[in-house]
Amino acid sequence: MTRLYNAPADFADEATDGFVAANGRWVRKVHGGVARSTTSPEGTVALVIGGGSGHYPAFGGLVGYGLAAGAAMGNLFASPSAQQVAAVARASEHGGGVLLSYGNYAGDVLNFDAAARALEADGIAVRTVRVTDDVTSAPADRAHERRGIAGDLCVFKVAGAAAERGDDLDAVTAIADRVNARTRSFGVAFSGCSLPGADEPLFEVPEGRMAVGMGIHGERGIDETDVPTADELASLLVARLLDELPSGVTAAGARVVPILNGLGSVKYEELFVVYRSVQRLLADAGVVIVEPEVGELVTSFDMAGVSLTLFWLDDELEELWAAPADAPAYRKGGAVPQERVAESVLDADAAPDAVGPAADESRAAASTIAAGLATVRAVVDEHADELGRIDAIAGDGDHGIGMQRGSHAAEAAAADAVARGAGVGTVLRIAGDAWSDKAGGTSGAIWGAALEALGRVLGDDARPAAATVAQAVGAAAEAVRAFGATVGDKTMVDALVPFDEVLRSRIDEGVPLAEAWRAAASAAQEAADRTAELLPRKGRARTHAEHAVGSPDPGAVSFALIVAAVSP
Amino acid sequence: MTRLYNAPADFADEATDGFVAANGRWVRKVHGGVARSTTSPEGTVALVIGGGSGHYPAFGGLVGYGLAAGAAMGNLFASPSAQQVAAVARASEHGGGVLLSYGNYAGDVLNFDAAARALEADGIAVRTVRVTDDVTSAPADRAHERRGIAGDLCVFKVAGAAAERGDDLDAVTAIADRVNARTRSFGVAFSGCSLPGADEPLFEVPEGRMAVGMGIHGERGIDETDVPTADELASLLVARLLDELPSGVTAAGARVVPILNGLGSVKYEELFVVYRSVQRLLADAGVVIVEPEVGELVTSFDMAGVSLTLFWLDDELEELWAAPADAPAYRKGGAVPQERVAESVLDADAAPDAVGPAADESRAAASTIAAGLATVRAVVDEHADELGRIDAIAGDGDHGIGMQRGSHAAEAAAADAVARGAGVGTVLRIAGDAWSDKAGGTSGAIWGAALEALGRVLGDDARPAAATVAQAVGAAAEAVRAFGATVGDKTMVDALVPFDEVLRSRIDEGVPLAEAWRAAASAAQEAADRTAELLPRKGRARTHAEHAVGSPDPGAVSFALIVAAVSP
Repeated sequence: MTRLYNAPADFADEATDGFVAANGRWVRKVHGGVARSTTSPEGTVALVIGGGSGHYPAFGGLVGYGLAAGAAMGNLFASPSAQQVAAVARASEHGGGVLLSYGNYAGDVLNFDAAARALEADGIAVRTVRVTDDVTSAPADRAHERRGIAGDLCVFKVAGAAAERGDDLDAVTAIADRVNARTRSFGVAFSGCSLPGADEPLFEVPEGRMAVGMGIHGERGIDETDVPTADELASLLVARLLDELPSGVTAAGARVVPILNGLGSVKYEELFVVYRSVQRLLADAGVVIVEPEVGELVTSFDMAGVSLTLFWLDDELEELWAAPADAPAYRKGGAVPQERVAESVLDADAAPDAVGPAADESRAAASTIAAGLATVRAVVDEHADELGRIDAIAGDGDHGIGMQRGSHAAEAAAADAVARGAGVGTVLRIAGDAWSDKAGGTSGAIWGAALEALGRVLGDDARPAAATVAQAVGAAAEAVRAFGATVGDKTMVDALVPFDEVLRSRIDEGVPLAEAWRAAASAAQEAADRTAELLPRKGRARTHAEHAVGSPDPGAVSFALIVAAVSP
Repeated sequence: MTRLYNAPADFADEATDGFVAANGRWVRKVHGGVARSTTSPEGTVALVIGGGSGHYPAFGGLVGYGLAAGAAMGNLFASPSAQQVAAVARASEHGGGVLLSYGNYAGDVLNFDAAARALEADGIAVRTVRVTDDVTSAPADRAHERRGIAGDLCVFKVAGAAAERGDDLDAVTAIADRVNARTRSFGVAFSGCSLPGADEPLFEVPEGRMAVGMGIHGERGIDETDVPTADELASLLVARLLDELPSGVTAAGARVVPILNGLGSVKYEELFVVYRSVQRLLADAGVVIVEPEVGELVTSFDMAGVSLTLFWLDDELEELWAAPADAPAYRKGGAVPQERVAESVLDADAAPDAVGPAADESRAAASTIAAGLATVRAVVDEHADELGRIDAIAGDGDHGIGMQRGSHAAEAAAADAVARGAGVGTVLRIAGDAWSDKAGGTSGAIWGAALEALGRVLGDDARPAAATVAQAVGAAAEAVRAFGATVGDKTMVDALVPFDEVLRSRIDEGVPLAEAWRAAASAAQEAADRTAELLPRKGRARTHAEHAVGSPDPGAVSFALIVAAVSP
C-alpha cells in the first residue's frame, strides 16, 4: 500500500517535483511533465512519451540522451491531459517533429490524440505509435487493441536511439512500429496496490494465488492459479511467449532481448531466481539472448507482480538497442570503455584438499563418520522448518537454512573424502571446511570449527578409542566456546557443555562409549529444552548487542537433535 | 513476502546464478560470489565488498568499473563464509592488495576477519573498513559499534574511484575511513518481510505504525509512532541527521550528498514525495546538495521502509563521488557527454487566455458562475473519498482525486478570469480548460468539454435567459455524448441525459429556471442512484473493453451531486 504522501490529490504533482529535484542532471520541469535538461541537435526528432503516474521509471525516468525528449506525467493511473501532453511536446521538440509513444489505454489515446491535433494546428509534425505488447489483453488477431506494459521500454529505447542517430520523423515512426510488432509481454500478479489515501486496495489477489494476465492497473486477467515455484512461473511465461512469435521469426537462432520486469514488491533476488530459469528455457529453444534487463522498468506502485517481455531483434534493432542511453532510470554504455577478461579466466574454486595416508581402521571409522553426517543431514532436513521458525523469532531466521546448507555440504564432502581414502580425522576436517564454507553466517563458522577440532584430535592413524572421542569432543567444545558465547547465552553452548561434561565423566567411569554418548545426548536434550523455553517467543526482542556472537538462536536445539540422532 | 523461489535452501545460490546470467557484461561467477568480468590495471587496489543476500543492489549489483572489484554474497541475511570471502578476494585482486569493506554486523566481522587472515597468510596485503552509518544503532560516542546501511554506497563508491585512480592500499583505506566518518544514516520501517518458504514474517510492524530506527534485518529500533505524512517524515529524518554533524562540519555552506533509500516496497513515487521535502529542508539549512540519489540502493527484500543518508563532502571526496562508475545497478557518467540547456529555458506554461469584451450583465453572471464553481469544488471535496472508493471498485480509483484536481483548478481559473473582467462564456471556457488540464484522464476531458460547451452557448454578451441555459446544457450534453458513452453505460451520461431532458421540457413549459433546475437535478439523482446500484460492488469486474471511454465510473453520482448543489 502507498503510505507516504501529504494531500492525496497533490501526490502526483509532489512526486514530479521531487523527481525533478533529484534528477536535474537529466530533466527539467515543464507544464504537465518533464523535458530534457540537456540540449539536443536542432532538427532531430523529439520522442515524447507519457501516461499516468505510479509506473516509475515509466515515464519520467526514461527521459534523457538516447531515450525520450520529454514525458507527460498524468495523475495516478490517469492519463495526462491533452494540454499537458501538448505543453511537454512544445517544450521538447527541436525542429524535427514529435513522435508520441505511449501504452494503449483509452484515456491516453483520447488525450494524446487531442494533443496531436493541437500540435499539428501549431504546424508541428506529429506521429503516434501506441505500444501493444500485452498478449493477454486481446487475441493476436486484434493485437492493435492490446494494452502496453513493459514493452514500452523496447519501443522507447530503440525509437530514441533512431532519433539520436538523426533519422527523420517517418523513419523513427517506422522503426518504433517495427519494434512494437516484434515485442510481446506476459504478466502475472500476486497482490494489488492502494492509491494514496485510499482505505482499501484498488484491487486484490487472494493470498497464495496468482492472477495470470492481470494488467498494471488491475485489469482483469485470463486465469487465476496458486502461486507456482519460480521455475514453474518461468516455464509459464516463456511457453506463452514462444507460442506467439512475430511473423517471419523462428525461435531457433533468433536474437532476443528478454526483459523480466518487477511490478513493485516482487524483489530483485526473486526476479533473478526466475530469470535463471528464463534464460535456460530460452537457450533450450535455441534463442540467442542479447543484453537482457532484469529489474523494475514499468511498475504499478508496490503491486507484487512480474512480467516477461521478449523483444525479437533484427540487425538494425539490435544496433539501436545497444546504443548509448543516459536517463535518470535507464543507462547504457559507460564513460570509460571496458575490456572483458579472457574467457580462460574461470571459476576460482579451490581444488579439493589433498588426502594424506591413513590407517585402515581410521578409514573404517571415516565411513562411519560419513554415514553419521548423512544422518545429521537427514535430521536437519526433517527439522529445518521448525528451526527456521524458532530463529525467525529469536534470531535472524536463517538457522534452518544455514544448518541445511552446511550439513548437505558436509555430507557430500565427507563421502567424497572417504572415496578418496581419507582417514577419520581428514574426513572431519574436510567436512567441517565444507560446512562453514557453504553455511556461512556465525553458526556455519562454529560448526566448521567444531568438526575441524574433532578431526584434529582423532587423526588418521587409528580407530578412535572412547577416551580419544571424549578428548575430541572436549576440543570441539573448546573451539566453539572460543567464539565467545558461554552457558546461559541461549546458544548451542548451553547444550554442548553439559554434553561434553557428561560424556567425559561417564567415559572416565568406564562406561562404554555408546552408552556414555546416550547419557550425554539426553543431558544435552534437557539443557536444550530449558534454553528453548527461554528463547524470545514473539516480537523482535533483540538489541544490537544481541547481534554479537552469542545472539540467541536455536543452536542448542539443533545440537541436541543431532547428538541424539548419531551414536558411535 | 517472498513468493518466488524453488527450494528455499537454494534461493541465495539461484539468485546469484540469475544475477550473473543477466549481468555478464559486468560480473562473472566465482566461488562465494562475483568478480568483475572486465579487466583492471595490474597493481591497483581491489575493493572487495559483501554481506548477506536479500539487500540487492548490495552487494553484487555494485561490482564494476569505479566501484567494487568483487562481492562475496552470503546466504539470506547471513554473512558469507570466510572461505567465500577469501575466494572472491583471490579472484578479484590484481596485485595492489585488497580492501575489505562491509556493513558492521557480527557475523560479517567474524568471517571477513578470518578471510583477511587467510589472505595475509597467502601474502596478499589486506585492509578492512567497516561501514557504521546507522545513527540509531549506537550512540555517537560508540559510533564504531553502529551498523552499516545505505552509507555502504558512499564508502564503496568513493573507495572504488580512489582505487581506479591508482591510489595505493593505505591511501584507499584512509579515504574509505574518511567517507565512513562523514556519512550518517537514519531509517524507518512500516512492515517486515518474510524469507523464502517462511510461513510467518521474519519481523513485523503493526499496520499504520512506523518503527523508527529499525535495522535492515529487523533489528529493534528506538521508537514506534503512527505513520507520519511524507513531509513530517522528511523533517524527522533531516532533523536527526543535522543533529549529528561530522566533526569540523557546519551545515551552512556544507556540500552534501543525500541518499533517500527505499528498502523494498516503499516505491519511487513515494520516495520522490519525501525527497521533495528533504531537499527543501536541507536548502533551508544552507546545505548545498550534490548529485543526490533517490531509489533502492540497500534493500531488505520487500520490507516497507526508508532511510536517509547524508554524506558530507570535502573537495577530494566530491571529485571521487562524481567520478564515472559502471556496475549492474549503479552507473555514473554517460558514454556521450551532455550539455545542459541554458538556464533561460524556463517552464513552458502558457500565458492565461486573453479576456475579450463582455456585457456588464454577463460579467455579473460570471461572478455567479465563479461562486457556483466554488460550490462545486466544496461538494467534490466533501465526497472525494466516497467517489474514490466507488471508483476503486468500478473503475480506476482516480475519480475522486481527478474531480478534486479539476474542480479546484476550475474554481481558481474562474476567479482569476472574473477578476480580469471576463464574461460568463469566457469564464466557463477558461474554467473548462483548467479543469481538463489539471484533472487529466477521461473524466477531466469530459468535464472540460462540457464547461466549454456551456460557455460557447452562453457567450459574453448578455445575462443568460432560461432558454439559453437550457440550450447550453443541451450543447454540453452533446459534447459529453461525443466521447462515445450512451445511457446505460454506467457513466455520467446516465444522469446527464435525464437532467438535460427534464430541464429543457420544464423550461419549454415556462417553469422558472431555478424550479426547472431543481426538477432536473432530482431526475439526475434518481438516475444516478439506479446507476450506482448497477456499478460493480467488489472484485475486479472490468474487462479490457470496459477500459474504453464509457468504462463504468461514478460519473453519474458526482454529476448528480454537483447539479443538486448549484442552482441558478
